[in-house]
Amino acid sequence: MDKISIGHHISHQFNVALEDVRNRVLAMGGLVEQQLADAIRALALGDTHLAENVITGDYKINAAEVAIDDECVQILARRQPAASDLRLIIAIIKTITDLERIGDEAERIARMTINLAKAGGSDNRAPYYHIERLGDQVKHMLHDALDAFARMDAEAAVAVWREDRKADQEYGDITRQLITLMMADSQAIPKALDILWSARALERIGDRSRNICEYVIYLVHGKDVRHTSIEHMEKEVLDQRGN
Amino acid sequence: MDKISIGHHISHQFNVALEDVRNRVLAMGGLVEQQLADAIRALALGDTHLAENVITGDYKINAAEVAIDDECVQILARRQPAASDLRLIIAIIKTITDLERIGDEAERIARMTINLAKAGGSDNRAPYYHIERLGDQVKHMLHDALDAFARMDAEAAVAVWREDRKADQEYGDITRQLITLMMADSQAIPKALDILWSARALERIGDRSRNICEYVIYLVHGKDVRHTSIEHMEKEVLDQRGN
Repeated sequence: MDKISIGHHISHQFNVALEDVRNRVLAMGGLVEQQLADAIRALALGDTHLAENVITGDYKINAAEVAIDDECVQILARRQPAASDLRLIIAIIKTITDLERIGDEAERIARMTINLAKAGGSDNRAPYYHIERLGDQVKHMLHDALDAFARMDAEAAVAVWREDRKADQEYGDITRQLITLMMADSQAIPKALDILWSARALERIGDRSRNICEYVIYLVHGKDVRHTSIEHMEKEVLDQRGN
Repeated sequence: MDKISIGHHISHQFNVALEDVRNRVLAMGGLVEQQLADAIRALALGDTHLAENVITGDYKINAAEVAIDDECVQILARRQPAASDLRLIIAIIKTITDLERIGDEAERIARMTINLAKAGGSDNRAPYYHIERLGDQVKHMLHDALDAFARMDAEAAVAVWREDRKADQEYGDITRQLITLMMADSQAIPKALDILWSARALERIGDRSRNICEYVIYLVHGKDVRHTSIEHMEKEVLDQRGN
């Protein structure tokens, strides 16, 4: 079994409550995806107006986290869920923490965009091309992680986990490229560092998307896959499928 | 009221279970503190042997996180705690996530120490002095956050929150110093970046210690203080004290 379904409770109210909190997580995920896409676009184009929008928009994500957290605590207190429902609530509490922090990273990227614009001067656009590529990878990872969460699909979650390697590689390439740039032109160092911080933020977003996938696998298999290697995890999922 | 006490349940077994999980969190905290202290010492002294120990020791923290997480889920399923007990369990689930990630940051610092030793060559020791100072601040923050957690002391938690400003300032100083160093000597750039990543890891540990304090305040006051300003939070705590 690689998916679980909700909405199988005798209590209609409980079904509604679970479905509602799950939809709220997906809505929060959509908000975070939008903030991330805007932050990457603002950085790539040097669009400070869009960057400002990302910074002022972060409060919506924070508010969503607090509201969903509250709702989860209410469900735990009133419904006292067991087994897979309990795991769903725990997974949601952890997922929204990562989503909120992804929002913070998007805000950080937006601040770097404004820093870079303030610094002015001539610009070597090559690093931005690579940042955009890393940004695209990370956007896909987040989207696929949320999709795996929406469908409670552990196999899809493992696939996202695997994507993270590519993002790490791209991040490594950007770092080397920026070090070369800094060594050749010391005046470029402050700006290169801001780009480097943005790349780091994107890499962290990839890590957090992977965290969300771990919660999905925990939800489906009831097994803690954190701190295990990807090979081991793939085996777990395939074994379960074979059963 | 600025503290809450546990161990007031009619069920003796429940008291034992709550006390046990709480003690485990503190033991995990002690482990993380030791890893962090070793990582900072290894970096400051360029001690690669100690750095290797930090890297190989990280699994203990991961194992502790998984075990405590399991115990919390068991308690939620079997005891169906309400009110402050439920909040305690939620706070623990969140706290151990941050503790585990602090462990990861310590491991990252240890890896930087090994990178720096491999790079060899002459060394400007000035940045290490500042790193040590930031390291001391962050160690204190983590220690005080765990102490606030152990005593369920919201006022102490607010004090730690305030300390984070100093750490941010120190981190800003280190960044500026390293940029100056890099601009003066391009050959020093790769090493300076490794030191910068270490400083960043320390700054993040400060942020995570602050997260732990937020959970303590949530635990004591039942109010979500995330995403509020420190002034607002201080007022909250003082208002509650006045009541």
